[in-house]
Amino acid sequence: MILLNGRAHADDAFDRGLEFGDGVFETIAVINARPRLLERHLARLTVGCERLGILGVDIDQCRTELHQAAAARDVGVLKLIVTRGLGGTGYSSAGGMPRRWLAAMPARERPSHYSTSGVQLHLCELRLPSDPRLAGIKHLNRLSNVLARREWQDPDIAEGLMRTEDGSIVCGTMSNLFLVQHDMLITPAIVDAGVCGVVRAAIIDTCSAQGIAVLERRVTLQDIAEASEVFVTNALIGAWPVRALSGYQWVPGPYVRRVQEWVREW
Amino acid sequence: MILLNGRAHADDAFDRGLEFGDGVFETIAVINARPRLLERHLARLTVGCERLGILGVDIDQCRTELHQAAAARDVGVLKLIVTRGLGGTGYSSAGGMPRRWLAAMPARERPSHYSTSGVQLHLCELRLPSDPRLAGIKHLNRLSNVLARREWQDPDIAEGLMRTEDGSIVCGTMSNLFLVQHDMLITPAIVDAGVCGVVRAAIIDTCSAQGIAVLERRVTLQDIAEASEVFVTNALIGAWPVRALSGYQWVPGPYVRRVQEWVREW
Repeated sequence: MILLNGRAHADDAFDRGLEFGDGVFETIAVINARPRLLERHLARLTVGCERLGILGVDIDQCRTELHQAAAARDVGVLKLIVTRGLGGTGYSSAGGMPRRWLAAMPARERPSHYSTSGVQLHLCELRLPSDPRLAGIKHLNRLSNVLARREWQDPDIAEGLMRTEDGSIVCGTMSNLFLVQHDMLITPAIVDAGVCGVVRAAIIDTCSAQGIAVLERRVTLQDIAEASEVFVTNALIGAWPVRALSGYQWVPGPYVRRVQEWVREW
Repeated sequence: MILLNGRAHADDAFDRGLEFGDGVFETIAVINARPRLLERHLARLTVGCERLGILGVDIDQCRTELHQAAAARDVGVLKLIVTRGLGGTGYSSAGGMPRRWLAAMPARERPSHYSTSGVQLHLCELRLPSDPRLAGIKHLNRLSNVLARREWQDPDIAEGLMRTEDGSIVCGTMSNLFLVQHDMLITPAIVDAGVCGVVRAAIIDTCSAQGIAVLERRVTLQDIAEASEVFVTNALIGAWPVRALSGYQWVPGPYVRRVQEWVREW
């Protein structure tokens, strides 16, 4: 018997995704009725399922459903959650089949000046736990992101940067970070924490193809202070220039404009 | 629109519990149609909701529903999940109402020799991330427990112990740990990781009331090796003596028998 707020509910509600965050997800932009960077999303989903030992996920079926959902009217965002499904006793997970949860929704309106003149960031107090085993994949254990996002209410602040205990800046609550120094792109290495964003990966690959130096390494606040450009990226926003963080200021520069151009092409 | 495995599903399926593990839970034993240690469970639930900033949870309503569910036939376990509910955009959580998910089920059969002659434990390779902000509460971000539990399939192994990066032993995948040394109980301090179990708390309080020394501190494998008794506890199992771990062996002693007696009284 399962009750939701005191009322009888379907018996299959206790998905391991709800019970333990036992799964992964993807949030995909839909542009002109097509899911953007779909193969990169599916590749990360596959890696995540492998890392968690979630077997038997039908990626072709996911692809088909995502294409179909994207073709519907007014769809701007797809969110796909793949969980280990039902079953198992407690933490042990014997024999259940994974489940695909897919939601299609309109795109969220963002102020257009975020893309043009840039955004202000908050430096979060919360420290990301170091967890190399889960770093990189987009798993469902996102309380750190939720708690970090609760640190500010100011609507003029578009995103917050999160650090690990040693002060390294890893990523935003919902985005990856890039800096420009001496005609080189720098992005925090995703080793102990954070998610390997699909736009981040696409930028790195495009830089390689075009002969632009890009470095994945430890990043400190000092690195950011010394950057000539700063921007944040994710699958929905593409790339937002950063104009202010912790008293430092920047104006959007040529690199973020180039990246925004790439995102438009994808 | 929401699809579950390709089929249309109720629009309210994307609870923040499923999306981000944004909530807490309790697993409660039902003995003679009464939830055992209910007030301790509700107190921990309250602390967890406060820690996560989940406001407006009706604890009296939870209590009433748990009592009602416990009174039904053949119910041995209640599982209550409280999430931040629906709503919010991405990680940001503006204005949604929390949701109560309650499942009632029969007790899981455990071999009776687990309680009498004791259990064998596995020492998990996985390292628990240090996350003081989430330590103690029973939140829904449980991938570490799921992955640790996947390290063994041997049905003769009843539980696994988990360590932090520095080698400290914190808890089992589903239980708390106690040692006996020189007529003193020792249990790992729950500071950086792990859950403050309700049976653990009840044992500590009963020891205090009865003048038995009990110490919460850092615990190493060496401490376990030197213990005269070792046992693990949780709300469903009560207390299981540990008979074997990593080549060390014990026989159930007077302290675990006393704790088992207490659990019977609760």
